[in-house]
Amino acid sequence: MTYRAPVPDIVFTMRHVAGLDRAVADGVYGDLSVELAETILEEAGRFANDVIAPLNREGDKHGVTLKDGTVTTAPGWKEAYKGWTEAGWNALPGPVEYGGQGLPTLLNSACVEMWNAASMAFGIGPVLTMGAIEALVQHGTEDLKSRYLEKLVSGEWTATMNLTEPHAGSDLAALRSRAEPAGDGTYRVTGQKIFITYGEHDLTDNIIHLVLARLPDAPAGTRGISLFLVPKFLPDGTRNDVRCHSIEHKLGIHASPTCTMIFGDNGGAIGWLVGEENRGLNCMFTMMNNARLAVGLQGVAVAERAYQQALGYANERRQGRAIGAVEGMSPIAVHPDVQRNLLTMKALTAAARAICYMTAEAIDRAHLEEDPGRRKKAHERASLLTPVAKAFSTDIGVEVASIGVQVHGGMGFIEETGAAQHFRDARIAPIYEGTNGIQAIDLVTRKLPLAGGETVRAQIASMRATAARLLKESTPAFGATAPRLRDAIESLDRATSHLLQSLSSNAQGEALAGATPYLRLFALAQGGAALAEMALAANAQVAGGDTDPAHAGRIALCRFFAENIAVGAKGLEETVMSGAGFLHDATLALAS
Amino acid sequence: MTYRAPVPDIVFTMRHVAGLDRAVADGVYGDLSVELAETILEEAGRFANDVIAPLNREGDKHGVTLKDGTVTTAPGWKEAYKGWTEAGWNALPGPVEYGGQGLPTLLNSACVEMWNAASMAFGIGPVLTMGAIEALVQHGTEDLKSRYLEKLVSGEWTATMNLTEPHAGSDLAALRSRAEPAGDGTYRVTGQKIFITYGEHDLTDNIIHLVLARLPDAPAGTRGISLFLVPKFLPDGTRNDVRCHSIEHKLGIHASPTCTMIFGDNGGAIGWLVGEENRGLNCMFTMMNNARLAVGLQGVAVAERAYQQALGYANERRQGRAIGAVEGMSPIAVHPDVQRNLLTMKALTAAARAICYMTAEAIDRAHLEEDPGRRKKAHERASLLTPVAKAFSTDIGVEVASIGVQVHGGMGFIEETGAAQHFRDARIAPIYEGTNGIQAIDLVTRKLPLAGGETVRAQIASMRATAARLLKESTPAFGATAPRLRDAIESLDRATSHLLQSLSSNAQGEALAGATPYLRLFALAQGGAALAEMALAANAQVAGGDTDPAHAGRIALCRFFAENIAVGAKGLEETVMSGAGFLHDATLALAS
Repeated sequence: MTYRAPVPDIVFTMRHVAGLDRAVADGVYGDLSVELAETILEEAGRFANDVIAPLNREGDKHGVTLKDGTVTTAPGWKEAYKGWTEAGWNALPGPVEYGGQGLPTLLNSACVEMWNAASMAFGIGPVLTMGAIEALVQHGTEDLKSRYLEKLVSGEWTATMNLTEPHAGSDLAALRSRAEPAGDGTYRVTGQKIFITYGEHDLTDNIIHLVLARLPDAPAGTRGISLFLVPKFLPDGTRNDVRCHSIEHKLGIHASPTCTMIFGDNGGAIGWLVGEENRGLNCMFTMMNNARLAVGLQGVAVAERAYQQALGYANERRQGRAIGAVEGMSPIAVHPDVQRNLLTMKALTAAARAICYMTAEAIDRAHLEEDPGRRKKAHERASLLTPVAKAFSTDIGVEVASIGVQVHGGMGFIEETGAAQHFRDARIAPIYEGTNGIQAIDLVTRKLPLAGGETVRAQIASMRATAARLLKESTPAFGATAPRLRDAIESLDRATSHLLQSLSSNAQGEALAGATPYLRLFALAQGGAALAEMALAANAQVAGGDTDPAHAGRIALCRFFAENIAVGAKGLEETVMSGAGFLHDATLALAS
Repeated sequence: MTYRAPVPDIVFTMRHVAGLDRAVADGVYGDLSVELAETILEEAGRFANDVIAPLNREGDKHGVTLKDGTVTTAPGWKEAYKGWTEAGWNALPGPVEYGGQGLPTLLNSACVEMWNAASMAFGIGPVLTMGAIEALVQHGTEDLKSRYLEKLVSGEWTATMNLTEPHAGSDLAALRSRAEPAGDGTYRVTGQKIFITYGEHDLTDNIIHLVLARLPDAPAGTRGISLFLVPKFLPDGTRNDVRCHSIEHKLGIHASPTCTMIFGDNGGAIGWLVGEENRGLNCMFTMMNNARLAVGLQGVAVAERAYQQALGYANERRQGRAIGAVEGMSPIAVHPDVQRNLLTMKALTAAARAICYMTAEAIDRAHLEEDPGRRKKAHERASLLTPVAKAFSTDIGVEVASIGVQVHGGMGFIEETGAAQHFRDARIAPIYEGTNGIQAIDLVTRKLPLAGGETVRAQIASMRATAARLLKESTPAFGATAPRLRDAIESLDRATSHLLQSLSSNAQGEALAGATPYLRLFALAQGGAALAEMALAANAQVAGGDTDPAHAGRIALCRFFAENIAVGAKGLEETVMSGAGFLHDATLALAS
């Protein structure tokens, strides 16, 4: 079962949830038109379908190999990567002054979804290059920019993010890698970094490592970390003192090399400072915010791929007889319980996609709005939505892939079917780029208090506006969508007030204990509202005479989400409200 | 991280939820005492810890190999299996007249949990032998019994269940394998069977296949299927006409061979009829009911293993500083969000264990009660609980294993850590022995109507009795347990009435559409009530002067479940009540 990029769904989501038309009309996107965006997405979809998707299963089986410090990717990967960069896809969001096309994050996000649905192991590489470009654009010296940006934008070279060390994962304060000034403006970087995605590979001639390390006498903790650029090959063509020591044997994304990198075995790798001394984490966060959205998109992507695989199987596989059928076996896709599974997969995927695209649009406006006040508001909205986009999408990526295995029955457990690969691949996304627990804590402790709580209040108000429109809607196909969505939003509102209150009264434990269920609650209300926006738009188009049957499908999907998924909101609210009570004897419960 | 059998938790669950003491007092278990049961479980725990658990990782890495029709298991497996049978563990539940120890299903269920926690790939083999023993005891001729039972009971030989064919999985009506009478009382069996667990291996000298096939001129559909016993080696020592054609490359349980079996390539495998002609499915269901409980126990088992692994890691791994800690990094197990993850793992595991053990006790009473009325009631209770035990436990097996990976962060995605293996292994259990969708349909369409609905009503009444006791309980550590549990039970009660009403008004689609959320709802209420029973018992022991800190832990776990997991009941009730409305345009939603 291969992948077909769902371009119509993608475009509909961009237009009717993420506000593509509005942004174009507002002039935020320059001379980009909706039609041009659609044309680009169709072209991207073709590349994803025809070139990348066929590599996915082979890449999984073949994996990558390390020999004498050289990593070889699976057959066909080098050619596909070359073709992809030559077609300009890496350069799509890059700055125009360095050869990029300067297209919006929203448009690129839809592309990132497609690359990753075609193959997560392929898609994750360019995410890191993209992050490095942003860090260099914002924090690099002119010298570094002119030396590296053009080739990173084109994709002729790739980049890596070197944060994690054995004792420093979620807690970067413990980081030990060191950088000594050489006196000539360069530094000598030494240390060991683990879990470095595409740390070494054969896709490109050079690899540009961005590395967090400590200067001599830097303060302890996170305020003593600086960022360095360490190329695999130096400007004069000689090999730098950095090597891949080993690669990991992972549960999934086998075709993506995950490397342990050794810097400075022979005296120190030559590096250049990026940004200010001891301000490396700030530079890193520049990369990480957009990388978090990209990883969220990986969750959407693997969910979409798993859904397509399961739907295809369910339409082919015949077992049992449908209610009312006269004879013979029916495709399992007609059985109510299988329909529940497939609709759950599709509804969760659509909701996560909507949240990710909304986040992308907010990121665009945070950069592109002319008015500083609107820029600030958009930035705050993007900040609020990013942890939800990352964590919810990657959580449902695993859930949807798991249901996908289940729909296949016994065949789902056999590797050659392909469903199992999605289940394995999906499992990394809730972990990397900040675990989903870290995302939830970020949402509650840093994002809820933004603008004195006004950012989250405004977001809830916009969900309420959608619910209010729905309550006036009388089309029977909506079923109980309106009351269910309203209930979910009110649950979110009460839980939000409770957490803001906890934070302002310094009840940190209360907020931390409720963070994960709160994030899910936020996503159920936001996802339900987003699907309702699409369903209302679809309904309006039907009323206007549009006979596309997809519109009825959008209403049915929205209804399914409200009646079957958003109904979980009340329980999550109660969980948040119960708060940290459970923590009191938790240690005893875990010890017994 | 290895496995330590949680014998105290197991014994506490058996005594205070599954009614071990009461059953002993009632004389149902003959001369078994609580003390003897505990001694046996401690011994079983040692074997699981010391002999089986160390094989698990090696078995996963090594897998099994097929060469010239011969399957070789991983190094050490043959010796471990031999030691296990020689210690009498296979014979534990077997009938005394064939060398078994005749011990209760409840006691054996606790052992099955431990074997499977030590290694799912090891534990699944004997489950099939156990099922075959039951089928032969109930349906076999004296000749077959005397020829095979002793060696199956001891474990000197193993057995298999040959149901599935490429076109007949959940729907056995489509089964095509054939059996022709040879005129001498034997049959010649031909056909291909897939997904045959331990269909071929090197652990024992002989393998006894139970095979579903059609007699000539048998009616079409499920009423034309008969059951045959087909040994790998015939009584005269010659090889029968059955062979392993291939083995599957699976997502998990790599050390368990999953075979495609070919019967009758050379004229027909010699087989003997088990039970009546065309009544094979009845015989198979004898095996399958207990096998379903055993697979439920696999869910509990892998969840327990994943929990222990995650807890061990969380206690060792240091990142971040706990609230209130002065300096240095704290073990991640102290962070509220990680505690939520660990408590979710432990609470789901404990609830599933309780439901499985309750089911086991009902199965025992269905066989062992002297009074026919009590036997019938126990049989109905076992029938009601079996699909819940199977589906809920295996669903949470996957969920808990997934959280286990998450607790490990990046290390969870690396195979050598071991967390990923549990995630892969766990994924089969919701599929085999009847997918969890099939279990939910069984629960709703066949089990709810038992005794005119009285079986489920009585079960809900017993949950209510627990909730009523809790409501009178004033110990502060219970928090909001009582109201949350009461709400969950009332949700279950309303959803049950709705489904019984749908069934009696022939609204089949309504019942089928709500089956899966109903099963989960049932498990949340039942699991919450079971943990409350344990917590009340623990509280009483504390009141009686027992200073074991595990008792406070049991109360905290019960509270966590009620406040954080059982609160999902209301949303599930709403989903069941929304019913089949979503199915109307489901096809459009899936097509778009």
